[in-house]
Amino acid sequence: MIIIGELINGTRSKVKEAIAGRDADCIAGLAVKQAEAGADFIDCNPGTVGEQEAKDMQWLVETIQAATDKPISFDSPNPQAVQRGLEMYTGEAMPMINSVTAEPGSVEKMLPIVLEAKVNVVALALGEAGMPTQGGQREEVARQLIDRLVDGGIAASQIFVDPIISPLSTSPEACLHILQAIGAIREYCPECHITCGLSNISFGLPNRRLMNRAFIGLAMQAGMDSAVVDPLDQKIMAHIVVIEALLGQDEFCMNYIQAHRAGKLDV
Amino acid sequence: MIIIGELINGTRSKVKEAIAGRDADCIAGLAVKQAEAGADFIDCNPGTVGEQEAKDMQWLVETIQAATDKPISFDSPNPQAVQRGLEMYTGEAMPMINSVTAEPGSVEKMLPIVLEAKVNVVALALGEAGMPTQGGQREEVARQLIDRLVDGGIAASQIFVDPIISPLSTSPEACLHILQAIGAIREYCPECHITCGLSNISFGLPNRRLMNRAFIGLAMQAGMDSAVVDPLDQKIMAHIVVIEALLGQDEFCMNYIQAHRAGKLDV
Repeated sequence: MIIIGELINGTRSKVKEAIAGRDADCIAGLAVKQAEAGADFIDCNPGTVGEQEAKDMQWLVETIQAATDKPISFDSPNPQAVQRGLEMYTGEAMPMINSVTAEPGSVEKMLPIVLEAKVNVVALALGEAGMPTQGGQREEVARQLIDRLVDGGIAASQIFVDPIISPLSTSPEACLHILQAIGAIREYCPECHITCGLSNISFGLPNRRLMNRAFIGLAMQAGMDSAVVDPLDQKIMAHIVVIEALLGQDEFCMNYIQAHRAGKLDV
Repeated sequence: MIIIGELINGTRSKVKEAIAGRDADCIAGLAVKQAEAGADFIDCNPGTVGEQEAKDMQWLVETIQAATDKPISFDSPNPQAVQRGLEMYTGEAMPMINSVTAEPGSVEKMLPIVLEAKVNVVALALGEAGMPTQGGQREEVARQLIDRLVDGGIAASQIFVDPIISPLSTSPEACLHILQAIGAIREYCPECHITCGLSNISFGLPNRRLMNRAFIGLAMQAGMDSAVVDPLDQKIMAHIVVIEALLGQDEFCMNYIQAHRAGKLDV
């Protein structure tokens, strides 16, 4: 699993304050803790707008990469902010842009940046018709996005398709639709990655973390190989280790045994 | 999910002592606790042999049904012990025999009992060739068993197919083979139940309960609708409630919300 650590997000009040007050220790601490806990990418979402967002992105990127060499996921719909982040990025590992959608103009605005910088890109299955409600709609929009990005010169292995999780509280079939879409996308493009903002599944319900980790196992079984999660949540990280072992992605359970010895499975 | 509570099993040392010493309070307590925790069947395995097993089965059945009206699963390869259990059974709900196999003579010995008593029957995918190692072998033996039982006059809905879980520690593909077999059996016989002795998956590995509950989610997604588990393990019972909600088996998440309100999801 490719883990995108979600904690540096300006919509969280503590992070919003840290960005506004340029509290580098707070941001660096969140970056280091997520890297140590197993994040493969550090998501970076300033949560502001316009020129302020570009300034905040610049400061966040400088702060994060002074603390860890994990690649950054530049998380903003604002091409100016993403571009600023990329300009500041000095890491060796290929970073990520989150995201392009199938909404009018999105691919056109972001594609030149993605091609120029050779980055991974999250392709959010958000079409002109708005939020998808059926599995079939998700896979149709995802296929269109994959085709446009590949036709534009992006390698399939740089694409992280996000089928968009709908809350189970709004539809009893929300999870089934997502699992169906993940399976169809995996079949359509075996080289792509499939990711998601996991916690949407439990929106509006109690015991959200319990549901999030139960869901991640089902999604991995369907073909998902990445997720935006809180890597400091030891229970979900342990669950991912176990599911990888069960799905034959951890030969001889070496990683499972290692996690056990490190006490990471005592959750 | 149809939960078969596994705790009254003479191979467990505490239960072995209780059976030998005719400690009715211990056995009745285990029966009541499992029923209260959500067991649909109370498994009853004397763990002895020959005429002694028949005597122990008789005492266990009398003791269990004095404590709860949940149906009993008569768990023994010994037709004499199973027959004795059935003779003592006074419950209204259809009990269960665990098990028949595809080994020579097994179906022939048990089928008359199953037909006479109109009971559910666990069909263990254990063929003449011994333990299955590949998904394909499991489903082949399971198909043969289903056909023989149905031809013999048993309704498909009375059959609980057990594809036999192999430990992940012996093969990195053990879980994948099981999931494939579950899917194939579900497709072959939609009316059958599919059950398993869950804890085999984690045999020889640490953090077994963590792995057992991660596995049960994957197996349920593949089509399993029953399991032999410890219903006093609150974490696995909570996980089952969440997976049922995710898989659309709990409309409007009513059972999930109810379990939350009862504090059963705070694990």
